[in-house]
Amino acid sequence: MDDIAAELDQLAIEVPSWAYGNSGTRFKVFATPGTPRTVQEKIADAAMVHRLTGLAPSVALHIPWDKVDDYGILSSYAADHGMELGTINSNTFQDDDYKFGSLTHSDAAVRNKAIDHMYECIEVMNVTGSRDLKIWLADGSNYPGQADMRSRQDWLQDSLRKVYDRLGDGQRLVLEYKFFEPAFYHTDVPDWGTSYAHCLQLGEKALVCLDTGHHAPGTNIEFIVAQLIRLGKLGSFDFNSRFYADDDLIVGAADPFQLFRIMAEVVRGDGLSPESGIALMLDQCHNLEEKIPGQIRSVLNVQEMTARALLIDRTALTAAQESGDVLGANAIMMDAFYTDVRPGLAQWRETKGLPADPMEAYRASGYQDRINTDRQGGQQAGWGA
Amino acid sequence: MDDIAAELDQLAIEVPSWAYGNSGTRFKVFATPGTPRTVQEKIADAAMVHRLTGLAPSVALHIPWDKVDDYGILSSYAADHGMELGTINSNTFQDDDYKFGSLTHSDAAVRNKAIDHMYECIEVMNVTGSRDLKIWLADGSNYPGQADMRSRQDWLQDSLRKVYDRLGDGQRLVLEYKFFEPAFYHTDVPDWGTSYAHCLQLGEKALVCLDTGHHAPGTNIEFIVAQLIRLGKLGSFDFNSRFYADDDLIVGAADPFQLFRIMAEVVRGDGLSPESGIALMLDQCHNLEEKIPGQIRSVLNVQEMTARALLIDRTALTAAQESGDVLGANAIMMDAFYTDVRPGLAQWRETKGLPADPMEAYRASGYQDRINTDRQGGQQAGWGA
Amino acid sequence: MDDIAAELDQLAIEVPSWAYGNSGTRFKVFATPGTPRTVQEKIADAAMVHRLTGLAPSVALHIPWDKVDDYGILSSYAADHGMELGTINSNTFQDDDYKFGSLTHSDAAVRNKAIDHMYECIEVMNVTGSRDLKIWLADGSNYPGQADMRSRQDWLQDSLRKVYDRLGDGQRLVLEYKFFEPAFYHTDVPDWGTSYAHCLQLGEKALVCLDTGHHAPGTNIEFIVAQLIRLGKLGSFDFNSRFYADDDLIVGAADPFQLFRIMAEVVRGDGLSPESGIALMLDQCHNLEEKIPGQIRSVLNVQEMTARALLIDRTALTAAQESGDVLGANAIMMDAFYTDVRPGLAQWRETKGLPADPMEAYRASGYQDRINTDRQGGQQAGWGA
Amino acid sequence: MDDIAAELDQLAIEVPSWAYGNSGTRFKVFATPGTPRTVQEKIADAAMVHRLTGLAPSVALHIPWDKVDDYGILSSYAADHGMELGTINSNTFQDDDYKFGSLTHSDAAVRNKAIDHMYECIEVMNVTGSRDLKIWLADGSNYPGQADMRSRQDWLQDSLRKVYDRLGDGQRLVLEYKFFEPAFYHTDVPDWGTSYAHCLQLGEKALVCLDTGHHAPGTNIEFIVAQLIRLGKLGSFDFNSRFYADDDLIVGAADPFQLFRIMAEVVRGDGLSPESGIALMLDQCHNLEEKIPGQIRSVLNVQEMTARALLIDRTALTAAQESGDVLGANAIMMDAFYTDVRPGLAQWRETKGLPADPMEAYRASGYQDRINTDRQGGQQAGWGA
Repeated sequence: MDDIAAELDQLAIEVPSWAYGNSGTRFKVFATPGTPRTVQEKIADAAMVHRLTGLAPSVALHIPWDKVDDYGILSSYAADHGMELGTINSNTFQDDDYKFGSLTHSDAAVRNKAIDHMYECIEVMNVTGSRDLKIWLADGSNYPGQADMRSRQDWLQDSLRKVYDRLGDGQRLVLEYKFFEPAFYHTDVPDWGTSYAHCLQLGEKALVCLDTGHHAPGTNIEFIVAQLIRLGKLGSFDFNSRFYADDDLIVGAADPFQLFRIMAEVVRGDGLSPESGIALMLDQCHNLEEKIPGQIRSVLNVQEMTARALLIDRTALTAAQESGDVLGANAIMMDAFYTDVRPGLAQWRETKGLPADPMEAYRASGYQDRINTDRQGGQQAGWGA
Repeated sequence: MDDIAAELDQLAIEVPSWAYGNSGTRFKVFATPGTPRTVQEKIADAAMVHRLTGLAPSVALHIPWDKVDDYGILSSYAADHGMELGTINSNTFQDDDYKFGSLTHSDAAVRNKAIDHMYECIEVMNVTGSRDLKIWLADGSNYPGQADMRSRQDWLQDSLRKVYDRLGDGQRLVLEYKFFEPAFYHTDVPDWGTSYAHCLQLGEKALVCLDTGHHAPGTNIEFIVAQLIRLGKLGSFDFNSRFYADDDLIVGAADPFQLFRIMAEVVRGDGLSPESGIALMLDQCHNLEEKIPGQIRSVLNVQEMTARALLIDRTALTAAQESGDVLGANAIMMDAFYTDVRPGLAQWRETKGLPADPMEAYRASGYQDRINTDRQGGQQAGWGA
Repeated sequence: MDDIAAELDQLAIEVPSWAYGNSGTRFKVFATPGTPRTVQEKIADAAMVHRLTGLAPSVALHIPWDKVDDYGILSSYAADHGMELGTINSNTFQDDDYKFGSLTHSDAAVRNKAIDHMYECIEVMNVTGSRDLKIWLADGSNYPGQADMRSRQDWLQDSLRKVYDRLGDGQRLVLEYKFFEPAFYHTDVPDWGTSYAHCLQLGEKALVCLDTGHHAPGTNIEFIVAQLIRLGKLGSFDFNSRFYADDDLIVGAADPFQLFRIMAEVVRGDGLSPESGIALMLDQCHNLEEKIPGQIRSVLNVQEMTARALLIDRTALTAAQESGDVLGANAIMMDAFYTDVRPGLAQWRETKGLPADPMEAYRASGYQDRINTDRQGGQQAGWGA
Repeated sequence: MDDIAAELDQLAIEVPSWAYGNSGTRFKVFATPGTPRTVQEKIADAAMVHRLTGLAPSVALHIPWDKVDDYGILSSYAADHGMELGTINSNTFQDDDYKFGSLTHSDAAVRNKAIDHMYECIEVMNVTGSRDLKIWLADGSNYPGQADMRSRQDWLQDSLRKVYDRLGDGQRLVLEYKFFEPAFYHTDVPDWGTSYAHCLQLGEKALVCLDTGHHAPGTNIEFIVAQLIRLGKLGSFDFNSRFYADDDLIVGAADPFQLFRIMAEVVRGDGLSPESGIALMLDQCHNLEEKIPGQIRSVLNVQEMTARALLIDRTALTAAQESGDVLGANAIMMDAFYTDVRPGLAQWRETKGLPADPMEAYRASGYQDRINTDRQGGQQAGWGA
């Protein structure tokens, strides 16, 4: 573990403010005690995750879910809790005007409304110092013929151009793609190719956001990771896991080996270094499990798989690959994957003054009882769907 | 068309009360003007669908969404509108107690609560004269280890037994299966095999409900239809269509050829005759499109595909099959599918005193304007998720 | 039909020489009487398809399966049969040296061998006057770690560059992508994004080839068609159909509505005009069905769906789309799809001096009996797997 | 590891004779040096796997690939090599007569031919003392209409009945299901439900065979395992792994966590005990990798995941499940999965007099060099597709 400690130290995972609120399915949203009512309470919870793991120094905001009057004050609040405000997530899917699209709508007035919302997000970024504006679009259609897919691509590029041109120095636009949902027939940014084509046309401040749950069954996600890094266009990850669709489960829960392979390509492409410009973020729902422990578990999962990925003997692997030793090359990968890095990481934590077992430390902290007691009344945060 | 008129006359499609209410995704539920506030208004809308198509003489209820004090009065109300009350759909997925399961819960108290709900549904059936109790379970788990899948099967059988034993003469239990959602790791009744195994153990009043949107990608649904009819265990259909997951789009919208093939197996297995005991129902969401026209479109789609399926030249098909004439046999199927039955069905409607074009007739009726005006205030019906 | 006749006349579908040979699965290749032994016999069969349908004026070759000493003589042979020689398909998947890759191999010697094969194909093109070199790569790996996916992308670009630079005026390189098979863990050109990125870097003579069977389950293929046409990078189609994987069934057989939607986007993007530069080709296997009738059926399917796509009332569709009339817009699409164009196309054929029913005309021609009798001895053509 | 040693000792994995021969895809079969030419050489190779791992005491045969004149002599040959002859695999997919089906064919003559083949297999079993006749059918169709799915189910049951009635005391029939391939439209035994329904009707000597690569994308296989054990109908496993379709990769290679979950349900259902009657078999292809090491890797993978599954703290797991502790329950599973059992298993091997590292021991043995040298000439074994 000593050999990989320096690289491990670079690992920083952004947590999403909305993970601390309630979420669910179209069938039911279960509420839980202690759920934040305000963005400040979300930040406090995120800070607890960072305090126990040392892995999660920033929290992403979602506008309008996290709207406040003064983002400067919010930044200070975050700083007081040892946190930074990170990526600003735009939302153009909950207003009635967006029923048939936002940046891709056939009506220029709706597109302009959505563009204005993006401008508003950039204003927030100007105050918070956030680098990235994340655009995920629910835009699409449910029935063949409902929408003109071709024209919408042109409208999309036109809208994105207007947003892009408003970006300040050091600011970036990350365009997320998603296979399906909430649109069921077509989605306007369904795959990495579409996001890549738009970002390429926009310029170097536009990058692709890869959500690990947004692909067709059977997709080799780590290939896309490798390709986007190679093309210089991977801006950020939205980590989560899935068995079927966009399940938004805890990252690494459904297929830990896949997470390992993804992190192996991140390491292969030097994606952990700050210079890579690749943001590692969570984007998850804790529908059934406890939220703060769910976030702790998530960042630990990323750390554990990163450690395993760093353990791959690259020299031996290359030699095996070049000699056509299929089983030998695979064994080198699997050896890293099957190595139990947990004791080593517990030690790493202790050298940092962190609890060896963050899950246990959380239980012992009394934090959950405290917020269960304190957070009475008000409206629990959620998606407002 | 004359040759198939007698069989076409048998076609009756049950519509779901909830299709007339609002529905959506976890991201957003869009409301529409004119949406019913009460089960009576839902029935009125359903009656409009039947009046224009002659295809939809009964409406399924969902308890508790359609709960009323007196189901006898509700039956009379329906009868006054030319409708019957059909299948009673139970709901054990929106109470906090069911967070970790209902009929399959590890806690007997929760199971008993769910069983009591089923008893309540049977009481409703006793009053409405409904034949079928439909059980769809959201039961499952999101993470490996969260639940003991094996024990839950035993609890499920035990719970179902108690429900089954309460069924009266002429009453049936139909057990729906679903591949995934809202549970993401495991679902307690994920496939037809599981539903079949339970129904077989229960007895002849227990039958499988096949929802056309509840299968893995690539599943040959018409094979399952043929198999369940052969085994004498197909109780009912929940019709809808999907491109990806359980999209709940208008039946026939995503893959009309698949609907044709399904109806071809229904016809092949004599499933249209009342003696077959196979209930044809819709179970759909109209998230973006108008609801009543959406229902009209749906029952027309089923009728059109049934007509095409009836047009298959069975004698020629069998001859081609037995002679190994692959292209010839396929051509016979395709010839039926490509036949434009719409003019013939318009005529069929006119001979019944129905409008030749029900979609146009609905537009011309002024009904939508009327309900848009009349249905002010109150709480629009929805899923209450 | 009169309104669309001019556009229909533009339709030309290239047929693959290998469709006339034997093919099968890894489990079994069934042989059939009359199967060609030589490329000349394949061309003769293809000519029969064109003679009866007027739709298939060119035949694609596959090197080395169709290797001959003198391609000039072969061109004349084709011309004598009323056919042109079309796309040249390279093959770098059946030589033992390519076990671990061809253009992407870690060993430069193997890459050079594959590049030399591409040069050889260009030499063939220089003689036949073919426009397109098609590159489909079986390159990939079966186990994580077996290959360095990232480096292989660089080697691929480097290899393609060498091939590209050898292209003459008016020649093009079309790069096909495929989701999986024969490689099971990773494929070096798995999606349109990868093919697009490489073609973009190569230059304007490099274009994407879209095989309709090469996508993940649930992929919206017509979206990709629309996108690639918009980006000016759709070079050609490989038509076929599939239920599960790359089944290579007769185009339109598995999901005729999907073929219709694809053709609708081709029409929408002006892809039928010769200036579009989009080649429509078949790439299919006739494992069980008769081969020449299978090809006739295939080109007719494309024609029928093209006719339906041309029948879409674009003005009305745009109006419905812009007014948010979901059901109305969808109905316009479905109305075109459900129109029975077969009588009109039979008439179209008769005005061209073609048989009204090409399938029947083939049966009546005695051609199959003749080749069954004549083609005795020798080695039936196949894939040589 | 001491606590689980007794259960680990029960582990016995049957290896398939055909894994030692050449296999490939429809595109290419790569040959390798040292590949067996005879069933005796296959058995010798299998014996080597057992000698080094202590895990693979029996080898499955495939008729006609492993046909010999005297199976008694073959049994003795196996015994001399420390091996038993196991499951007899029938083959009704490579004879031209079976082009349109075998046990399900519309022609009784073809069905009878296939039944006679099954009788022949039972005769082999009578001599070898094998318990299980495995029936995997390639039967199906490629085009809608090609076959009458419904009648074929009846023919299938009728054919199976005749085979079943020929089984001797202590003999069993295991019926394998498969989602698709080589048939692309419908498969006659596509899912566990179909196999279960037939086996149930046949009687207690008929059981389901579950091949881990034969499911739709996203299928929860461990649920099926749990269900079939619960129903008393799980006869055997065909182990392998897949990313996309029936890739037939080394078991555990594509998704080790899934193999762990499968073994966890086997353990949960007491499936390791000989009394369970559940046969654990490999059914794989080594298209690219070395065959004997591929088999060694495979049985080790099963052993490692079995060990992890045995390490699950069942008492704690049940407590967490019953208290609704989602993260706690999942953590107990993951803790077992992430435990590095390899050192413990190396020790276990040494206590048995086996090499600590079987892969290394194989390399050091010189066996591969020996067979590479010795096995010159003759026809290498393969599928003969």
